[in-house]
Amino acid sequence: MFDFQLESTDRRARAGTFEVDGRKAETPLFMPVATKGGVKTLTSEDLEEIGVQALISNVYHLLMRPGIEIIEKAGGLHDFMNWDGIIFTDSGGFQMIRKGFESSIDSEKVEFKSEIDGTRYEMTPGECVKIQERMGSDIAMCLDHCPSYPSERKEIIESLERTTSWAKRCREAGSTVFGISQGGTISELRRKSSEQIREIGFEGYAIGGLSIGEPKEVMYEMTSTANEVFPEEKPRYLMGLGSPVDLLEAVDRGTDIFDSAYPTRNARHKSIFTHEGKIRIDKSDYKSDYAPLDPGCDCPTCENYTKAYIRHLCKSDELAWMRLASVHNLYFIIDLMEKTRKAIKENDFKRFKKDFIESYKDS
Amino acid sequence: MFDFQLESTDRRARAGTFEVDGRKAETPLFMPVATKGGVKTLTSEDLEEIGVQALISNVYHLLMRPGIEIIEKAGGLHDFMNWDGIIFTDSGGFQMIRKGFESSIDSEKVEFKSEIDGTRYEMTPGECVKIQERMGSDIAMCLDHCPSYPSERKEIIESLERTTSWAKRCREAGSTVFGISQGGTISELRRKSSEQIREIGFEGYAIGGLSIGEPKEVMYEMTSTANEVFPEEKPRYLMGLGSPVDLLEAVDRGTDIFDSAYPTRNARHKSIFTHEGKIRIDKSDYKSDYAPLDPGCDCPTCENYTKAYIRHLCKSDELAWMRLASVHNLYFIIDLMEKTRKAIKENDFKRFKKDFIESYKDS
Repeated sequence: MFDFQLESTDRRARAGTFEVDGRKAETPLFMPVATKGGVKTLTSEDLEEIGVQALISNVYHLLMRPGIEIIEKAGGLHDFMNWDGIIFTDSGGFQMIRKGFESSIDSEKVEFKSEIDGTRYEMTPGECVKIQERMGSDIAMCLDHCPSYPSERKEIIESLERTTSWAKRCREAGSTVFGISQGGTISELRRKSSEQIREIGFEGYAIGGLSIGEPKEVMYEMTSTANEVFPEEKPRYLMGLGSPVDLLEAVDRGTDIFDSAYPTRNARHKSIFTHEGKIRIDKSDYKSDYAPLDPGCDCPTCENYTKAYIRHLCKSDELAWMRLASVHNLYFIIDLMEKTRKAIKENDFKRFKKDFIESYKDS
Repeated sequence: MFDFQLESTDRRARAGTFEVDGRKAETPLFMPVATKGGVKTLTSEDLEEIGVQALISNVYHLLMRPGIEIIEKAGGLHDFMNWDGIIFTDSGGFQMIRKGFESSIDSEKVEFKSEIDGTRYEMTPGECVKIQERMGSDIAMCLDHCPSYPSERKEIIESLERTTSWAKRCREAGSTVFGISQGGTISELRRKSSEQIREIGFEGYAIGGLSIGEPKEVMYEMTSTANEVFPEEKPRYLMGLGSPVDLLEAVDRGTDIFDSAYPTRNARHKSIFTHEGKIRIDKSDYKSDYAPLDPGCDCPTCENYTKAYIRHLCKSDELAWMRLASVHNLYFIIDLMEKTRKAIKENDFKRFKKDFIESYKDS
C-alpha cells in the first residue's frame, strides 16, 4: 500500500510524507543511487547513519548482474542489500535508450544486449514492472522512452506517444508504480505528456528526460509545466537532479522527490560540498587545515576528521578518503532537504532558499 | 611511561597486558599497519569497532608525506588520525634498506631520497627515534639494518654490528623504545644480536629481518632463538607476521606482539579468512551463497552481509566490498588473538592451536 500525505505548502513548495508497505519517508526527499545494488563506496549502515530514507536502484543493471534469480533467492533487494529503507527501482529505460545499449525497440518491447557477457534480453513494459516487483522494489518506475537533448519535434512526439502507450501497460502490470512524463523541452509537449500520464493514474508522478544537457532555465520551466499538471495529492519526482541549487529551485517549483549520483560522484572526484560552495580537497590550501570539510557540519566525517587528514589520505591514494568524502557530500544534501522541509513548514522557504544560494557559490 | 605485565604462561606461550601513557593493550596482540597514516580502506572508527588496540605507522612514509610539520601541527598522529589506541611507529629502516630507496648508508646515518618528489633526507639513528616521538608515537622502533634473505655470513655480521651500534644511539635518544634483533637466519648470529640488544635494555624487544622469504621452519627457529634470549618481563614483538597459522606458531614460541598488512592485503586481493581456510570471494560457488563470509563470525560484515552480496559488489567493482572484506579479515585475526589469550590463560593453548590448524587449510 502506498500513501502520500501533503503536510504543508509554502507558495508552490511542499512538505509531505509517504509510506509504502510500512516504510516511511519525508519530503522533500533526496535519494542516492544504488545503481548496481550499492551506493558507491558506502554500506547500508552508512546510509542509515547519514539519514537516508530511500534509495533508487536500477533494474537494467541488476538484470545483467547479478541477475534476477540471485536477488529473488536472497528474498529481494532489501534482504540482498541489507537495507530496510524504501527502495525505488528505475526501469532502465534511460540506460537502454540513451546510452545506446538497446538492440531494437518497437511499440511492444525493448531488446538489449548485456554489456557484460553479450546475453540478449527482451522486455515488454509490463514485464519491466513485473521484474521490478519480483526484485522486491517498493516503488517501480514505468519504462519510458527518453529523447536526447536536443531532439527534433517529431522525435519528441514519437517518444511521448510511446511513453504513454508503455505507461498504460506498466500501470496494468504493477501495484505501486510512478508514471514518468516526457515531452522534451517543448512546453506544449511536456504538458501533453504530463496530462496523459496523469490520466492513466499512478501512485506518484515523475519528470523524466531532464538534466541531460538542456539549459537550467529550460529545465526549471519544464519542471513547473509538469508539476502544474500533476495532481496535488500525489508526490512529484524529478529524476536525475542532485546539485544543491537545482534541488532548491525544483522544490520551489513544487517537486517532492529527487535522485542523483551527483553527491557521491562529486566526492569521488575530490569535489566537496560546503555551505560556501564546492571545494577541491586535494588543493594545497588544505595541507594544514585542521577544520572539518565544512565547519558547522555534523556528519560522521566532519565530526571525526580534518581537511588536512582527508587531503593526506587522498594524496596518498588511501581509499578510505572516498568514503569519508561520500558520507559528507551525501549528508550535506540529505541535511539540506531536512532544512528545506523545516523551512517550508515554517513558511520560511523563500528566505531559506535565498540565504542558501547567496552563500553557496556553485562553479 | 611503559609498563608490561606478564599475566599467564602456558608452556612458552604468554598472555600479558601493557600500558603506555594511559593507553592499554592485551597480548598476544595483532596490530594492523597504518603505513601512511591510515589502515587501507578503513577508518579509525572501523578499527575501534573491530577491537583493534594498537596499530603501527611508518615514519619513513610519513616523513615524505604529509611531512612532520603537518603531523606536529595537528597535535601528533593520534589527533591527525583521530585514533586513541596505541600507536607504534616503525623506523622505516626496512623500507630504506630493503626496498632500495636509500642513497647511502654509513655507521653514522642513512640518507634517502623521497620517491614522491626526490627530496633528500638524512637521518641519524637518534634523529629517527626523535622524529617518531615528535610525530606523537607511543612506542618508537629502533632504526635497524636488515640484511636480505639469503645473505652471506659476512653481510649478516656487518648488519648485526651496525644494528647494535645504532640501537645504542636510539636508546639514548628516546624514552619508550623497542630494540630490534637482526642476525639473519644463522642461529649463532641471531642469538648474538638478541643478546646485544637485550644488554642495551629496552621497553620491549622485537625480532626483525624475518618473514622475508626464508622457509617457515627457519623463521620459527629464529623466533625461538631470540625469545630465549629476551627477558621474560618484557614484551616480544615479531615484525611483519600476519597469517593465522604463523601467529599461533610464534605465540607458541613465546612471542607477544605482531604486525602485518597480511589481513587487509588478502582482503583487497579477494582472499577471505574463514575457520576452514582462505576462500576466494569472486568464485562462482558463492553466487547464491547467502551465508556470511565465515559462518559463526560476529564481525560487522558477517552480521550484515552475505557472500552473495559481497561477491556481487566485488564483480561489479563497487569499492565498498574491499572495506567489508578488510573489516572481516582484520576482525578474524584480532578475534584469533583474543581466543589465543583466553586459551593461554586457561592452560589450553596446545589444544586450541591444534584444533585451529587442523580446521584451517592454508594454501
